[in-house]
Amino acid sequence: MSVQSFELLILGSSAATPTANRNPTAQLLNIAERFFLIDCGEGTQMQMRKYKARFQSINHVFISHLHGDHFYGLPGFLASMHLLGRKNELTIYGPKELEEIINLLHKHSDTYLNYPLKFVYTQNLTKQLIFEDEKVEVYSLPLKHRIATTGYLFKEKPLPRNIDKYKLEKLNVSFAEIHKLKLGLDAIDNNGNTIKNIDLTIDPPNSRSYAFCSDTKFFEELAQDIKDVDLLYHESTFLEEKKDRAKQTFHSTAKQAAEMAVLANTKKLLLGHFSARYGNLEEFLNEAKSIYPNTELATEGQLFSL
Amino acid sequence: MSVQSFELLILGSSAATPTANRNPTAQLLNIAERFFLIDCGEGTQMQMRKYKARFQSINHVFISHLHGDHFYGLPGFLASMHLLGRKNELTIYGPKELEEIINLLHKHSDTYLNYPLKFVYTQNLTKQLIFEDEKVEVYSLPLKHRIATTGYLFKEKPLPRNIDKYKLEKLNVSFAEIHKLKLGLDAIDNNGNTIKNIDLTIDPPNSRSYAFCSDTKFFEELAQDIKDVDLLYHESTFLEEKKDRAKQTFHSTAKQAAEMAVLANTKKLLLGHFSARYGNLEEFLNEAKSIYPNTELATEGQLFSL
Repeated sequence: MSVQSFELLILGSSAATPTANRNPTAQLLNIAERFFLIDCGEGTQMQMRKYKARFQSINHVFISHLHGDHFYGLPGFLASMHLLGRKNELTIYGPKELEEIINLLHKHSDTYLNYPLKFVYTQNLTKQLIFEDEKVEVYSLPLKHRIATTGYLFKEKPLPRNIDKYKLEKLNVSFAEIHKLKLGLDAIDNNGNTIKNIDLTIDPPNSRSYAFCSDTKFFEELAQDIKDVDLLYHESTFLEEKKDRAKQTFHSTAKQAAEMAVLANTKKLLLGHFSARYGNLEEFLNEAKSIYPNTELATEGQLFSL
Repeated sequence: MSVQSFELLILGSSAATPTANRNPTAQLLNIAERFFLIDCGEGTQMQMRKYKARFQSINHVFISHLHGDHFYGLPGFLASMHLLGRKNELTIYGPKELEEIINLLHKHSDTYLNYPLKFVYTQNLTKQLIFEDEKVEVYSLPLKHRIATTGYLFKEKPLPRNIDKYKLEKLNVSFAEIHKLKLGLDAIDNNGNTIKNIDLTIDPPNSRSYAFCSDTKFFEELAQDIKDVDLLYHESTFLEEKKDRAKQTFHSTAKQAAEMAVLANTKKLLLGHFSARYGNLEEFLNEAKSIYPNTELATEGQLFSL
């Protein structure tokens, strides 16, 4: 278990029309105290209050596409951040038309945000690195939906090597030299002797990754872009009995989501974006588990820690 | 008590930023089975589900102004009506820029609604009749806020006269002649005798009215436009202690709302649009009641029947 956090909070699990219990798509991912909001359907800010999410800690918002159930909560979220005193820059990743929409809303409400808003435009032609800092990388992924849509892949960068404390105690090494060991370099002890990195360190935990894939029809090529991901969220708007409806609307079934989890060699699958026609979601779980056992439902308030 | 319904359901009582318990502004008014949605803040469609409001019965939506907390729920509401199979025309009353916003959202999501959407533009210069049918009239009212804003006044048309059934039983009158009596005309009985309307009918109940006034600063001239209204909803974003803040932001205090209720000679006052800074709303009630006793809080789920 890593000391660095890697947690996903589900804020909405519904497809296009919300139900009494299910909100449209939104998720909050925390990697190493970077808070990434992924999609922002109507009511997301209320869901964040309900689940006591850290509102102002979010500096990056990722919008998959411009169907309303994936971003109609964004304008209100931006306004509330402003009214609650935000000063820090916020970056929005999404289709370039989103900037036009936000600008028009702000123009007609005579709104001038108190914080800088930056847009990074996504394209859905190739996998692209769109964010990077010292601990995390984020890629956009082309999906296949009725309008231009991207998924997102969040990856921890390789964690620093762990020092073997028992062995270190027996040596006489300065802090500066210990830092070199953490970076994977050899060090020199206070007697001038070289310490080989391999002799004093142990491998760090594996870097973890999360792929968000909504909305999309099933297509095999996606598996290459998310190969070996630890946690996969894949939309399952329908059950397999509505396979034709899924195909027609460029959505997926629970069975297809499970097939993608197998193809991509993921460690765990989350299902979401359930059509309002389904009251009981157990059938989604059963259908997917028959193909890929390590499956869970990504429903409101669920927290998944890696 | 009239047999014709006149009911107001509160869907949201919050000012600009929603809280854990308070949603942004939205109200559903039912006069004689005409369902009027008044403002449509973020999450209104979920609130309608929560309170089992008749979603598809709404044919008229009135938007006061283009601050997000009064209409960010509208695009999702329009989309859900479409997805749930609506075919009937829907009319939206509001600033003309609202049509530009909705059109842009539909363009970028490649949305073509299955039902006709009609816009009626409001202006905030004079009181104007904007809707009328055989039972109801709706007027827009100029308010004074930071951007162009209108209130709305909903009025029953005069109800038909009631026939005095005991007197009617003793006479011999055809159905056609009874209908004339209901309309206030004289009738002729089957013997050819004239029956004076006043002798066979009693006055109908008074026509009822509701005024929605949000958002606005206090200004005396408003009282003329809503004179003698039965039910007044007047925003009270702040308590009197924040009078300066109210003035600066073109909002009202609970005291000012009560003063308007007195000036306009209304029968009942509802307070709403409470700033998120206030947890306990009892102080709003106390402040207003000291000036105008028949005051209530318009909080989520409350139903007010006239």
